[in-house]
Amino acid sequence: MKDIKNLKIAYIGGGSRGWARNLINDLAKEPLLAGEVALYDIDLEGARMNEKIGNDLSAREDIVGKWNYKVYEKIDDALTGADFVVISILPGTFDEMESDVHTPEKYGIYQPVGDSTGPGGIVRALRCLPMFEEFAIAIKNNCPNAWVINFTNPMTMCVRTLYKVFPEIKAFGCCHEVFGTQKLLAKVLKDTYDLDVPREDIIVNIVGVNHFTFLTEAKYKGMDLFPIYKKYVDEHPEGIGEPIDPDHWANAPFMCTHKVKFDLFKRYGAIAAAGDRHLVEFCPGKWYLKDIDTIRSFGFTLTSVQWRKNDLVNRKKVTLDNYNGKPFELRETGEETVLQIKALLGLGNIVTNVNIPNKGQIENLPIDAVVETNAFFSGDSLKPVHAGKVEPALNALFERIVEEQETVCDAALTGDYEKAFVAFVNNPNVCLGFEDARNLFNEMLENTKKYLPHYDRYLKQLN
Amino acid sequence: MKDIKNLKIAYIGGGSRGWARNLINDLAKEPLLAGEVALYDIDLEGARMNEKIGNDLSAREDIVGKWNYKVYEKIDDALTGADFVVISILPGTFDEMESDVHTPEKYGIYQPVGDSTGPGGIVRALRCLPMFEEFAIAIKNNCPNAWVINFTNPMTMCVRTLYKVFPEIKAFGCCHEVFGTQKLLAKVLKDTYDLDVPREDIIVNIVGVNHFTFLTEAKYKGMDLFPIYKKYVDEHPEGIGEPIDPDHWANAPFMCTHKVKFDLFKRYGAIAAAGDRHLVEFCPGKWYLKDIDTIRSFGFTLTSVQWRKNDLVNRKKVTLDNYNGKPFELRETGEETVLQIKALLGLGNIVTNVNIPNKGQIENLPIDAVVETNAFFSGDSLKPVHAGKVEPALNALFERIVEEQETVCDAALTGDYEKAFVAFVNNPNVCLGFEDARNLFNEMLENTKKYLPHYDRYLKQLN
Amino acid sequence: MKDIKNLKIAYIGGGSRGWARNLINDLAKEPLLAGEVALYDIDLEGARMNEKIGNDLSAREDIVGKWNYKVYEKIDDALTGADFVVISILPGTFDEMESDVHTPEKYGIYQPVGDSTGPGGIVRALRCLPMFEEFAIAIKNNCPNAWVINFTNPMTMCVRTLYKVFPEIKAFGCCHEVFGTQKLLAKVLKDTYDLDVPREDIIVNIVGVNHFTFLTEAKYKGMDLFPIYKKYVDEHPEGIGEPIDPDHWANAPFMCTHKVKFDLFKRYGAIAAAGDRHLVEFCPGKWYLKDIDTIRSFGFTLTSVQWRKNDLVNRKKVTLDNYNGKPFELRETGEETVLQIKALLGLGNIVTNVNIPNKGQIENLPIDAVVETNAFFSGDSLKPVHAGKVEPALNALFERIVEEQETVCDAALTGDYEKAFVAFVNNPNVCLGFEDARNLFNEMLENTKKYLPHYDRYLKQLN
Amino acid sequence: MKDIKNLKIAYIGGGSRGWARNLINDLAKEPLLAGEVALYDIDLEGARMNEKIGNDLSAREDIVGKWNYKVYEKIDDALTGADFVVISILPGTFDEMESDVHTPEKYGIYQPVGDSTGPGGIVRALRCLPMFEEFAIAIKNNCPNAWVINFTNPMTMCVRTLYKVFPEIKAFGCCHEVFGTQKLLAKVLKDTYDLDVPREDIIVNIVGVNHFTFLTEAKYKGMDLFPIYKKYVDEHPEGIGEPIDPDHWANAPFMCTHKVKFDLFKRYGAIAAAGDRHLVEFCPGKWYLKDIDTIRSFGFTLTSVQWRKNDLVNRKKVTLDNYNGKPFELRETGEETVLQIKALLGLGNIVTNVNIPNKGQIENLPIDAVVETNAFFSGDSLKPVHAGKVEPALNALFERIVEEQETVCDAALTGDYEKAFVAFVNNPNVCLGFEDARNLFNEMLENTKKYLPHYDRYLKQLN
Repeated sequence: MKDIKNLKIAYIGGGSRGWARNLINDLAKEPLLAGEVALYDIDLEGARMNEKIGNDLSAREDIVGKWNYKVYEKIDDALTGADFVVISILPGTFDEMESDVHTPEKYGIYQPVGDSTGPGGIVRALRCLPMFEEFAIAIKNNCPNAWVINFTNPMTMCVRTLYKVFPEIKAFGCCHEVFGTQKLLAKVLKDTYDLDVPREDIIVNIVGVNHFTFLTEAKYKGMDLFPIYKKYVDEHPEGIGEPIDPDHWANAPFMCTHKVKFDLFKRYGAIAAAGDRHLVEFCPGKWYLKDIDTIRSFGFTLTSVQWRKNDLVNRKKVTLDNYNGKPFELRETGEETVLQIKALLGLGNIVTNVNIPNKGQIENLPIDAVVETNAFFSGDSLKPVHAGKVEPALNALFERIVEEQETVCDAALTGDYEKAFVAFVNNPNVCLGFEDARNLFNEMLENTKKYLPHYDRYLKQLN
Repeated sequence: MKDIKNLKIAYIGGGSRGWARNLINDLAKEPLLAGEVALYDIDLEGARMNEKIGNDLSAREDIVGKWNYKVYEKIDDALTGADFVVISILPGTFDEMESDVHTPEKYGIYQPVGDSTGPGGIVRALRCLPMFEEFAIAIKNNCPNAWVINFTNPMTMCVRTLYKVFPEIKAFGCCHEVFGTQKLLAKVLKDTYDLDVPREDIIVNIVGVNHFTFLTEAKYKGMDLFPIYKKYVDEHPEGIGEPIDPDHWANAPFMCTHKVKFDLFKRYGAIAAAGDRHLVEFCPGKWYLKDIDTIRSFGFTLTSVQWRKNDLVNRKKVTLDNYNGKPFELRETGEETVLQIKALLGLGNIVTNVNIPNKGQIENLPIDAVVETNAFFSGDSLKPVHAGKVEPALNALFERIVEEQETVCDAALTGDYEKAFVAFVNNPNVCLGFEDARNLFNEMLENTKKYLPHYDRYLKQLN
Repeated sequence: MKDIKNLKIAYIGGGSRGWARNLINDLAKEPLLAGEVALYDIDLEGARMNEKIGNDLSAREDIVGKWNYKVYEKIDDALTGADFVVISILPGTFDEMESDVHTPEKYGIYQPVGDSTGPGGIVRALRCLPMFEEFAIAIKNNCPNAWVINFTNPMTMCVRTLYKVFPEIKAFGCCHEVFGTQKLLAKVLKDTYDLDVPREDIIVNIVGVNHFTFLTEAKYKGMDLFPIYKKYVDEHPEGIGEPIDPDHWANAPFMCTHKVKFDLFKRYGAIAAAGDRHLVEFCPGKWYLKDIDTIRSFGFTLTSVQWRKNDLVNRKKVTLDNYNGKPFELRETGEETVLQIKALLGLGNIVTNVNIPNKGQIENLPIDAVVETNAFFSGDSLKPVHAGKVEPALNALFERIVEEQETVCDAALTGDYEKAFVAFVNNPNVCLGFEDARNLFNEMLENTKKYLPHYDRYLKQLN
Repeated sequence: MKDIKNLKIAYIGGGSRGWARNLINDLAKEPLLAGEVALYDIDLEGARMNEKIGNDLSAREDIVGKWNYKVYEKIDDALTGADFVVISILPGTFDEMESDVHTPEKYGIYQPVGDSTGPGGIVRALRCLPMFEEFAIAIKNNCPNAWVINFTNPMTMCVRTLYKVFPEIKAFGCCHEVFGTQKLLAKVLKDTYDLDVPREDIIVNIVGVNHFTFLTEAKYKGMDLFPIYKKYVDEHPEGIGEPIDPDHWANAPFMCTHKVKFDLFKRYGAIAAAGDRHLVEFCPGKWYLKDIDTIRSFGFTLTSVQWRKNDLVNRKKVTLDNYNGKPFELRETGEETVLQIKALLGLGNIVTNVNIPNKGQIENLPIDAVVETNAFFSGDSLKPVHAGKVEPALNALFERIVEEQETVCDAALTGDYEKAFVAFVNNPNVCLGFEDARNLFNEMLENTKKYLPHYDRYLKQLN
C-alpha cells in the first residue's frame, strides 16, 4: 500500500496560476494525504512562486493538508518516483493563442475558445502534442506506474498522444464542464420543484468527446430528468441566466445562457454537457457562429485572448501578493482531482466523468479513440462504465471530431502538416474554399512556427 | 420519483424457505423503504406461511422496515404495478433435481451441485427455461419497467431467457459467490498482515459467467493482492479450512478448502471466484471430479440431493415454527439485494457484481451472452463496468460454457432437445461416447418429463 | 437448379427509357438465358412500349437471347415467382427533381447531380424511400427468394431501405461509376506505357459508399498502379479530357476532366472512383462547389434538370421510333447486370463492386450500413470481399455520409421529417444558418409534397 | 510487373519427397512461368536430389515449364530476392512424430494423424514453431514482399507464428482437404442425379480452422446441395467407400468412409470438410476415438508412424530412381499452388480456400486468429471473402481450438511450456486427470527435447 502521508505528486506546468492554485487549495483542505508536490515548469519563476506559496500555506496552523512544494529544474527529476503526475500547461504563449483564436476572424470564422477543435484547436495541437510526446517518454522512463492527470487542452488529443507514445500509461483527462451541466439540471429541479439538489446527486450517462459531451440519461433518485428538462427548454426559448458561480477564475467571462444547449436538445434529444462556447465550436460554423449577430442571438460570448492576457496580469498579481506574504484564501474549487487521487489510493470509490481511450464504453465510436464517459475509480484502478450506443444523427458529429483528432495527432507526431491541413479544411467551422483555407492555415502556422518542429519540411513541400 | 414508502415488490417463488426469508429479514432491517411484497408461488401454502411470517415481523415494534406481505394466486396480479420483481424458484421438485445430480453417477460422472452446467445443469435448464419464458411475458405485460432480480439457477440461462423473450427487460442476476472470494482474500490479508478488512473493501475486477467467475484484479486500498495471494497459495498446497460463516443456511454443507481455487490460480493466474464445488463443474471432468478419491484429495464435498431434502424438512420446520408464532430471528444474510434496490431507487450508488448481457464489458466474449462482471447501480440505472479482455487459455473455458448456454437456451425455448443433446455430449464433464451419453440423456429427460413441454416431439425424433 | 431457359425477371420501373433499354439490349445478346421479363411501371404507357420493343427484338432472327416481355398492371403479379427483380425508377417526376437540384441555388448551393446526398439527395430520399418500403414488402410477399438488383438513386438509401424492411432480402445495388475509374486507369496505362488494357483487368480494392467510393489498391497483373497514377496526377494539374465513351446515353453531358479526382488523390492518397460530378457532392460545399468560377476551374459540369427533360424527349422519341418499328440497335452498354445474373445462376463466378450491407468488409464503418466494395458472385450466393480499414482522414467523410443516410432512412420511414432536417442542416454542402436552411428545406418539401406521406404532420410540428 | 519468365521461388524444405515433388510436377506443366527454384533444406542430400530431378525434367523437350533448380546452403541466400516462398518441412524426424502419435496410446488416447491438435499436435507445435519464428525473421530480412505459402502442419499455428513474428508478411496456408469434400459432393451428385461435375464447380462457403473446416453452404449452379446431401447421409448410415483417388501419395492409407462426416452433419447441420481422420481429432476423444472398436465402427483408419516410415523408404526409392535417371512421371496432383501463384502474378483471379488471419471473415471468431475460409486471389493481392457467423453449438468447438492454438503459439514462442500444459490438459482428446496428463506431457517432451529450446527451463520449473 502507498504511504498516503508520503506521496509524490509531480506537476508539469507547476508555475501555472490556474490549475496549480486549485490543486494547492484542494490539497491544503484534505487531511488524509501528505507528501511532496514536485513543481516543474519552463516558467521557472512561476514555479518558484507556487513553491513558496504552497509551503507558506502548508506551514499555517489552520491548514490540515501538509505538503512540501519543491521546484525541479529537470522534468526527469520531478517525475522520478512520482505516484501522480498532473499536467496543466499553456502550449506556447498567449501570443500564439491570439493567433489561433483571432487570425481566422479575417475569414469570418469566430471561435469563442479556440483550444479544442476548429482552426485554433488544430494549430494548437500541432504546437502542443510534440510536448506531450516528450512528457509521455519522460513518464515512461521515470514513473511508469504513476497515475497521470491532464488538464491541458486540446484535452482529447493530449490524452490520445500520451497513450499513442506510451500505451501502458495510466492517464486520464479531467474536465469540469459536465459538472456545470449537472448544476444546470439542479437549477432546473430548483426552478421546477423548488428542490435543492447537489450536483453530485444528478446521475448522468455521458457520451462524446471532451467539450462536446452529451447526456443520454439524467436521473435524480431514479427520476428521469429528461421530460422535466424538455419542459424547461420549451418554456425558456431564450435560455436562462448563468447558474455557474462566477467567482471561479476559470468561469468568469465565460457566461452563457444555455440557449445553444437548449437548441441542441431540440435537435438531438440529448442534453449537451459543456459550456455553449465550447459546444458551438464542434458544430458547423454557420449554426451558431455565422456572424456576430448570430452569436449574440444565442447569448454566449467570445473570449478574446486580450481578455486572457489581462486576466493573466490580474492572476499574476494575486500570485505575487501571495508570494509576498498575503495569505492564500481557501475556496471551493468545484474540482474533483483530490477526490480522484484519493479514490486511486483506495480512499473511497467514485464514479465520475473522464477522458480515456474507448474500450467499447461507447459502442459505436472507434476503439482507442479518447472519449468522455463515466468511469469507476477505485484503489489503483480506473475502469470505464458502459455508456451505450450513440444515435446516428449525433454520432455524425462525434465521428467527425474523432477522425479529425486522430488525423491531427498523426500529423503532429509524424510532422506531416499537410495531413493536418486535410483535417483543417474539412473542419465545419472553416467552411472556406481551398485557397482561403490554405492562406489561413499558412498564416497560422507561421505565427506559431517556433513551436513547430517540422515547419521547414512543410514549407518545402508547399513549394 | 418513486414513493419509497409505497413500493411494490413482486416475489415469484414467494413460498421459498431460503431466499424469501433472506429478503424478509433484510427488508425488516431497512428503515428507509416500505410497501407491499406480493408473494406468488405454485406452492401456495409456502407463500401463505411467508405472508403471515412477514406480516407478524412487520408488526413488531422493534422492526424498522414495515411491509405488507400479500399472497396472490395469479402471477399477473402479483406483478401488476410492481417496482421490483424477485425470482427465486425451484424448477420442479427435489425429485427431479435428484435425477439431475445423481443419475449421471451411474456413468462415473459426479456433480457437487448439478444446477448450472454439466448434465444436471443442462437438463435443469430444459425444465426451467420455459417457466422463465412465461415470467418474461408476464413481466412484459404487467410491469415492463420493473427491475427484475433473479436468484434461480441455472442463473446465466435464466437471465438470458428473460432477455431473449423480452429484450427491453431490466433484469439482472445476483449471486453471493464472489463475496465469498472477497472474504477469502480478507482472510489472506488477516493471515498475512493481521489486517481486519471488510470484504467490501477488497475491490475486484470480475470476468466470467456465474459460478465460474475469475478475478483478474484484486486490490485493497490500491495494494495489489495478487502477489500476496500467490504466496499464500504456495504456502497452502492443501488449501485451508472454510472461512465462510457456517451459520448461513445456504452455505452449511458446502464447505471447501479452496484447494481447487488455488490450483486454478497456478494454472490460469487469475483468482477463481466461486465455491470450489461450483468451479469444478465447469472444468473437464477428469480434473477434479474423476473419482471419489480425486474429489476427496481436492477437499470439497458433493452435496447430495438427499441432504437437500433433509435440510428442507428442517427449513420447513423453522418456517412452521415462525408461522405458529415463534419470533423470526434477524441475522446478517450477507446479501446485497436491499442495497441494490436502494441504489436503483437513488439511495446510494454502488458498484458490485451482477449477471447481465455482455455489451462489451468483456471484450472477447460474445455480445448479448450473459456474463458476470461489476456494474454500476444508480437511480433507475444499471451499467456494466468494463472488465477487459480474457487471456486465451482461460477464455477457452469461458467460450465453451457460453456457447453451451446459448445452445441450451435455444433448445429449451424452441423445444429442439436434440440440439440440447449436442451441447450435452460436448460438455467436458460428460466425457462419454455417444451411446452412453444418449442413454444417460434419455434417462434424465424421462425422469423430468412432466416439466418438458416438447418431450413427445423428442421421443418421436428419436425413433 | 433454375431452368435458365425459363427465368422470370420482374422489372419495377419497366417503362424506363434508360436502364430498361440497357437490359433489353444485354439480354438480347446473351444466348444462354431465356424466359419472361415482367414489366411493371406506374407509367403504363412506357411499359407497354418496352413490351413491344422487347418482343419485336426477341422475334428477330439475328437475336440470340429470346425473352417474352409482358406488362403487369399490379406489382404483386409482376413479382409472383420472379427469380430476379430489377428496380430502376424515377421517384416522382423531373419537376420534383428540378426542385431538388435547383431550389438550393437560391442559397448559392450548387449540385451537379443532386440525387445521392446534399439537399437534393435528402429530399429525393424522403420521396423515394416510402416507395422502396412498398417494394420490399411486395417482394417479401411474392418472391422472397428472388435476387433484387437496384439501379435507383439515392442508391445507398434505397438498398438500405430494402434491408430495413425485409432483412432476409437478397438485394444489391449496381453502379458503373467504378468501371469509369478503371477505364481512367487503363488510359493512364495507355498514356504511360502504351499498353492496351481492358478495364476488367485493372483489379481494384474499393471502399466507401455509392458515388463516393475510393480505390485503396489498384493493380494490373500484380503491378501497383498507385505510383503510376501519382506521377500522372502530378503531370496533369488541370486534369484530362474525358475518356468515357460519350455514346452512352447515361454519360453524355456528364463530362469531367478528373481534376477533382486528382485533387482528392493528393489530399487522401486514395483514388476516388466515381465521376467528379458525384464526388464533389459528398465534400464540403466550399471545396469544389463554392461558386460557378470554382466549378469551372475544376472542369466538371452541372447537369441541369432542364437538360434531363430535353434528353427525355429525345429518348422518348427513340423509344417511339422503336415502338413504331424502327429496329432496336444493339450496342455495348458496359453494364454487368447480365453477367451478375449469370453468376447468380451458377454460370461463371465473378468478383465485382456492389452496394450491400456492411458485414465487416469495411472494418471501421458501421455494421449493416450499405457500403460499396467488391463482392464474390457465384451460384445463388453473394459474399462481400474484405476491403480493409479506412484511414481516419478519409473515414471522416465516409462516416458523415453513412450517418446522414441512416438518419434520413429513419426519417423517411418513420415520417419524422424534423430528423431529416437535422441531417440536412449538417450536410456540408448546405453550409447555411438555421433560418436559411429551414426556409430552403421547407420550400423543397413543399415542392415535392404530393410524394411525402407525412407532410401534414411535419407542417403541424413546425407551427 | 514481375517478369513471369524470371521468377524466384524459394523452397524451405526443398529436400521434401512429397510437396516438393508436387511443385516440380506442377511447374513443369505450366507454360507461362519460368525462373529459379531455390531449394533450402537441412536435409541437404534431399535438396540436391530434387535439384537434379528438377533440372533433368526442365531439360526435357516435352516439358513446357522451364525452371532452374538450385540448392542453397544458407536460408538467407535461398530467400534473397524471392518472389514466392514455399514452406513444407517435417519438424524433427518421424521418430519424434512417432512419440507424438503413439505415446498417448499408453493412456488410451488414439490419434489418426496427430499433427494438428491433441497431444501430438501440441507437442509438434512446440517443436515446430521456433523454426517458423526463424523463417519469419529470415523472410522479413531477405524478401519481405514475397508471397509465402505454407504446407507444414500444424498449419494454423505455423501461419499464426509467421504473422506474430512479422505482421506485414504476405503468408497463407494451403490445404487440399476441402477439395476432397467438394469431390465427395460431386460424388453425391453423381450418385443422385448421374451428373458429372468437376469439384471446382461445387461452390462452397467455408468456416473453421484447418483440418476442422465446415461448409455452411454448398451450391452447384446455384442449386442448394444441402437437402441432397441430407438425403444421401440418411441413406448411407454406414458411410460410403472412399471416392478420393488412391493413387495420390498423400492419400493412400488415409481412407475413410465419411461416416464421421455424416454423423457431424446430423449433429451440426453443416458439412464437415476434411478427412474423417482429421475431424475426429478436434472432437471430444470419447466421440470417435474412444477405443479401437469405436474407431472401426466409424470406418476410418489410424495412420501409424511406422507406415509413414515405410512409405518414406518407398518415396526415397522413387526419388533415388529419378535422381539416377528414371524419368519423372507427370501426373495430376490436384493441388492449386501453381494456380494461386499465377493469380498472384495477375494471371487469372481465383476464389479458393486458404488459411489466413481473421479480419472479420468469420464474424464470431477472434480477430487475427488464423482461420480457413474462401479468399480472393488476384494480382499481388489476397483478400478474405466474408464467410459469416458460426452457430453457437459449432462455434463451441471452433473457439476451443482457436484458444488452444493461441495458447500453444504463445507457449512455444515464449518458452513457457507450463502454459502449453494448460492447453494440453484442456484438450478434449486428452481426457485425463492431472497426474496422468502431466506424466504423458513430460514423456512426450522428453522424447522431443532436442528440438525444444526451452526444455531446461521447464524441467527447472517442474521441480
